[in-house]
Amino acid sequence: MSETPIDKGIETLQSGRHTEYVPVPGFRRERVVLDTSLFVNPDVRDSLGRTPTEALETFLFMAAQIHILEFYMPPSTFQELLNFIDRDKITGDMLLLLRQKPPRKHELKCPAYVLYELIEEIRDRVNRGLRVAETAVRSTEKKKIDEIIQDMRKKYREALREGIIDSKEDVDLLLLAMELDALLVTADQGLIKWAEKFGIRWLIPEKFSEYLSSAVRRSKDLPEE
Amino acid sequence: MSETPIDKGIETLQSGRHTEYVPVPGFRRERVVLDTSLFVNPDVRDSLGRTPTEALETFLFMAAQIHILEFYMPPSTFQELLNFIDRDKITGDMLLLLRQKPPRKHELKCPAYVLYELIEEIRDRVNRGLRVAETAVRSTEKKKIDEIIQDMRKKYREALREGIIDSKEDVDLLLLAMELDALLVTADQGLIKWAEKFGIRWLIPEKFSEYLSSAVRRSKDLPEE
Repeated sequence: MSETPIDKGIETLQSGRHTEYVPVPGFRRERVVLDTSLFVNPDVRDSLGRTPTEALETFLFMAAQIHILEFYMPPSTFQELLNFIDRDKITGDMLLLLRQKPPRKHELKCPAYVLYELIEEIRDRVNRGLRVAETAVRSTEKKKIDEIIQDMRKKYREALREGIIDSKEDVDLLLLAMELDALLVTADQGLIKWAEKFGIRWLIPEKFSEYLSSAVRRSKDLPEE
Repeated sequence: MSETPIDKGIETLQSGRHTEYVPVPGFRRERVVLDTSLFVNPDVRDSLGRTPTEALETFLFMAAQIHILEFYMPPSTFQELLNFIDRDKITGDMLLLLRQKPPRKHELKCPAYVLYELIEEIRDRVNRGLRVAETAVRSTEKKKIDEIIQDMRKKYREALREGIIDSKEDVDLLLLAMELDALLVTADQGLIKWAEKFGIRWLIPEKFSEYLSSAVRRSKDLPEE
């Protein structure tokens, strides 16, 4: 697990039973890249709010009190988020606190061996997809065609997409986290698996609200520069 | 199309109607990475021989007379080739003239934007695969299940694999060509498409034997170092 060193660049002085933090000149705020899944996936969202809009509002309320972290989201992921929240809840605060930035995709390099891993994963998925299709064809003796097709579509998508990076949005999140040397916070297990391959720090998504609470507390202890 | 500058690193002196080549100190032989498809794909192999073994023998006969080029093949691709040729035809010459080298996959970097292209291509293929499966399920009212499945397997593989890099061998060829700054010679259109993305030089595969003939002639004109 990646423990997030939010005190990176800060000198820690142990004085008696209190810990004092002295800001160091040139201290860079820790960067955090957020995925839409944090606000949308019910299992993860739960600790922040009952709906995506509520979860986002809780996040913004806390983020406004945090000056030791910078929050980022790729515009493509931000667009996804807008499908789930009330448009009129998009405030200036949100745009200020949740920085939108696309990765410099034409400048960034990635380790070539990830191509092998991606292709191996895809081959495996493609074979699973074929087995799903075969099972569907064989079941036509027992069930109605339309039911079979609906069922097959679901299973096929699961077989080919789950736990894999399969969209522009996924790649945006990974590359942005790599570019900013940021912590990636996502509820998507496929992305976490790929963050591991890229050497990107990630957070247990269920612990996101606790992580924010700690950052709020530390921000109060630390004078703003 | 990539014109191959086989006289790279050689000064050209125009003297009368003859062109004389003077080797320059530090002249590096042009590197060429070969794919198995050259010896296996009948359309391309044709100008070299009637069988894979014959095509390989013709190549080795010519390669032995060429000292201005170095030929390479990744071991994974070489293994593929061994499925098509008589094992007892593997000579010391073959091992000497067709250098086996795996790419340094853990040191090489690739442009990050190729991840977007690969993932986009895969999404498109996955959707095509699903359409193939749907058509198969719907045709069960007219045809026998076993026939349908056989037909579907073929179409599914075509939909998901053709024109795409989908194997370790494909990635090995691309990365080795990138690492050696070599010319890639393959009959695989998927690989050629990806060579374009990576900025790797490639040859019209049908012209491979003519390319070799020219190299033989130039090798005679050029004194060996």
